[in-house]
Amino acid sequence: MGQNLALNIAEKGFPISVYNRTASKVGETVERAKLEGNLPVYGFCDPESFVNSIQKPRVIIMLVKAGAPVDQTISTLSTFMEKGDCIIDGGNEWYENTERREKAAAELGLLYLGMGVSGGEEGARHGPSLMPGGSFEAFKYIEDILLKVAAQVPDSGPCVTYIGKGGSGNFVKMVHNGIEYGDMQLIAEAYDVLKSVGKLSNNELQEVFSEWNKGELLSFLIEITADIFGIKDGYLVDKVLDKTGMKGTGKWTVQQAADLSVAAPTIEASLDLRFLSGLKEERVEAAKVFSSGGFHDILSNQPVDKARLIDDVRQALYASKICSYAQGMNLLRAKSIEKGWDLQLGELARIWKGGCIIRAIFLDRIKKAYDRNANLANLLVDPEFAKEIIDRQAAWRRVICLAVNAGITTPGMSASLAYFDTYRRERLPANLVQAQRDYFGAHTYERIDVAGSFHTEWFKIARQSNI
Amino acid sequence: MGQNLALNIAEKGFPISVYNRTASKVGETVERAKLEGNLPVYGFCDPESFVNSIQKPRVIIMLVKAGAPVDQTISTLSTFMEKGDCIIDGGNEWYENTERREKAAAELGLLYLGMGVSGGEEGARHGPSLMPGGSFEAFKYIEDILLKVAAQVPDSGPCVTYIGKGGSGNFVKMVHNGIEYGDMQLIAEAYDVLKSVGKLSNNELQEVFSEWNKGELLSFLIEITADIFGIKDGYLVDKVLDKTGMKGTGKWTVQQAADLSVAAPTIEASLDLRFLSGLKEERVEAAKVFSSGGFHDILSNQPVDKARLIDDVRQALYASKICSYAQGMNLLRAKSIEKGWDLQLGELARIWKGGCIIRAIFLDRIKKAYDRNANLANLLVDPEFAKEIIDRQAAWRRVICLAVNAGITTPGMSASLAYFDTYRRERLPANLVQAQRDYFGAHTYERIDVAGSFHTEWFKIARQSNI
Repeated sequence: MGQNLALNIAEKGFPISVYNRTASKVGETVERAKLEGNLPVYGFCDPESFVNSIQKPRVIIMLVKAGAPVDQTISTLSTFMEKGDCIIDGGNEWYENTERREKAAAELGLLYLGMGVSGGEEGARHGPSLMPGGSFEAFKYIEDILLKVAAQVPDSGPCVTYIGKGGSGNFVKMVHNGIEYGDMQLIAEAYDVLKSVGKLSNNELQEVFSEWNKGELLSFLIEITADIFGIKDGYLVDKVLDKTGMKGTGKWTVQQAADLSVAAPTIEASLDLRFLSGLKEERVEAAKVFSSGGFHDILSNQPVDKARLIDDVRQALYASKICSYAQGMNLLRAKSIEKGWDLQLGELARIWKGGCIIRAIFLDRIKKAYDRNANLANLLVDPEFAKEIIDRQAAWRRVICLAVNAGITTPGMSASLAYFDTYRRERLPANLVQAQRDYFGAHTYERIDVAGSFHTEWFKIARQSNI
Repeated sequence: MGQNLALNIAEKGFPISVYNRTASKVGETVERAKLEGNLPVYGFCDPESFVNSIQKPRVIIMLVKAGAPVDQTISTLSTFMEKGDCIIDGGNEWYENTERREKAAAELGLLYLGMGVSGGEEGARHGPSLMPGGSFEAFKYIEDILLKVAAQVPDSGPCVTYIGKGGSGNFVKMVHNGIEYGDMQLIAEAYDVLKSVGKLSNNELQEVFSEWNKGELLSFLIEITADIFGIKDGYLVDKVLDKTGMKGTGKWTVQQAADLSVAAPTIEASLDLRFLSGLKEERVEAAKVFSSGGFHDILSNQPVDKARLIDDVRQALYASKICSYAQGMNLLRAKSIEKGWDLQLGELARIWKGGCIIRAIFLDRIKKAYDRNANLANLLVDPEFAKEIIDRQAAWRRVICLAVNAGITTPGMSASLAYFDTYRRERLPANLVQAQRDYFGAHTYERIDVAGSFHTEWFKIARQSNI
């Protein structure tokens, strides 16, 4: 990642020094710089000469593993840095670590940025989405470079903006990743329904996803999904073990949502599915228990109207995606309020339009929704999105019931629909839950007809009326 | 809570000193002790004389708000305590605070217990479920008292056991509360389907829940639900605002599940519903947006076979409950392994059979499942539970689809079914997600046919094959 970002920066005409303790890694980078067009990349294995080689005020971007390695790198480099120099962490760091380091750096007279970088190796090399947060002064030092290095989207500009103070850049990247978990899970469920219920072949799946990538679902993840179904080796996708790894940002997103009292069921479902996918051996055993226990796979071989199913699944995927993004954006807003970051949600949608893993035409619609109303309570109630959901809800419900009856269930799509059906309901059965809480814990309740806080001796009254 | 627990202890024949800074509260407790049979309760507003009034080694149970008030109380009382004395915190404390305090107490020569207490005011007075964790020596001091004070369940004994070291008592209580959130949400959904789809009146609902309370669902929460529907005042339940409060333990449960890589979708759904219930004003607005946007309530007035619906919902509720408890128990096991607590899951089910909010006949089945196999990977694969689920799955799927099509969706029941359908599936679509991760992030994948870790240049191959 660091290597690719360095080459990207050099290619845009900015000479760059690179540093790594391991000489071979430095050599490899310098070698690649030569091969890719004599790019101005200068290698160092010694921190002092590396720092001294940089023009003042110095700006150093670290791309090392989050956590302790970042602290070690700062400690190594800051020894040789001078007041007014700037350190940027480009890793997936926990935002509070960035805030701690920004303070420590300030004590040394150094500026600090925590910058989310999305787009994987390809993005780093040819244009990532960049989410720098922290010292605005430091951002200004490097703004020219970031604007050229970031992905460029026609009519919408470079995929970078100053996110906000403190750890906001890392936090926004974290939620981006949470949304990415949701997207990937929803696509996996679409695949599951089409394959398990619709009996689509990998060839057909490749065609379907390629087709989808021409319309409202146009996005990097749909595009690579189409690619994946096309890789032969006896269809490689079928040989891949059904165990999904993870690196922590999805977990943090779910934990932060809970902390901020923001419902994020689609993202939670995607995290849970990663956990459950990891229990491969238990699932194999459970499948045996249920098949020997008289449970027969419900998947029937009844003919399915494939064209209709494909169209329904596309609509279900799109509607579910709206709900997932609504959760992510509301999580960002809640944190922004808590921390005073003043996050611009529409601007975040804009810088995600290119470079990053969740890049999609869909993000333009989100940007426009916030352009229409910056204080939109929820994406679901934006008039355009509301209309899109209404148009798709029949198909959405059909797909979920089909999956439920086929015994596969679509956790992310179901969670999205439940989110929608809950959010748009004036009256929920939560009155019963609150009555129960007041019954056993005297937690009090409000009433629909009178203002105030009430407590009822439910137990006493119930027992009296039984006498 | 403290008052009630003190009266309970005194009633069991143990003279007790009570202390509060506020004289009127102490006076009230002493007064109640007189009225309720001249119970041996002695009141103090001065910490020193309170501590001195207690027989050595002293055992003091605190029931104050979790967090800073606990630290303040410890600081006030410990000044007058002596080596070998013991402090017990009976609040819903974050387990790590208990572990910190246990260490600090040890430095003063004091013993410390974090004891989960469940059962609300009624339970505290007449027999709670007690979950003491921390110093085993301290537990031994007070074991005689706890055995008499706890709820007594025929054939299964007092609802108390030594949980384990450190903060295990608080952690177990926290998960108990998470499970409680799940139970309450599932009951609310059953209510919602019966009321919104089945058009049952409150009278009918009272009958249904009373009837359910005679069978496999027999439990405190079902019992009080029946009571609630019976309270008149023009049916009070309909006047209660549909906003549910919360106190933090459900949130912690969800965050810990994420931390420990344990899927807990039913508990997450119940937490999300509390969050969404709180957005009453937004929901009212959203309902308007969707009704004016052409969204019509899908709830039809078609006649429903009430008896069939009631029976289906009962089965769906029961099956969903199994999944929710499976999540809670596996969360406990994961933490027990991490911390070396050696939690006895069957024994925990036993002490929850009485006194606490989730007390239910159902817990006996869980205890028996762990008696049959202490290393059960998941409650779902216990032969008895597996059979119960198989018997109920058709009804379960019917209820969920009915709710989805009626536009109400049952988030907890759906999450439970998705958990079941995922856990019992040998092959999930997680292969696609892992292929995507390898495509954009070179995260590698395993294969079903060859051991090892693999990486494919998906992008390059896909582009080559397109040429």
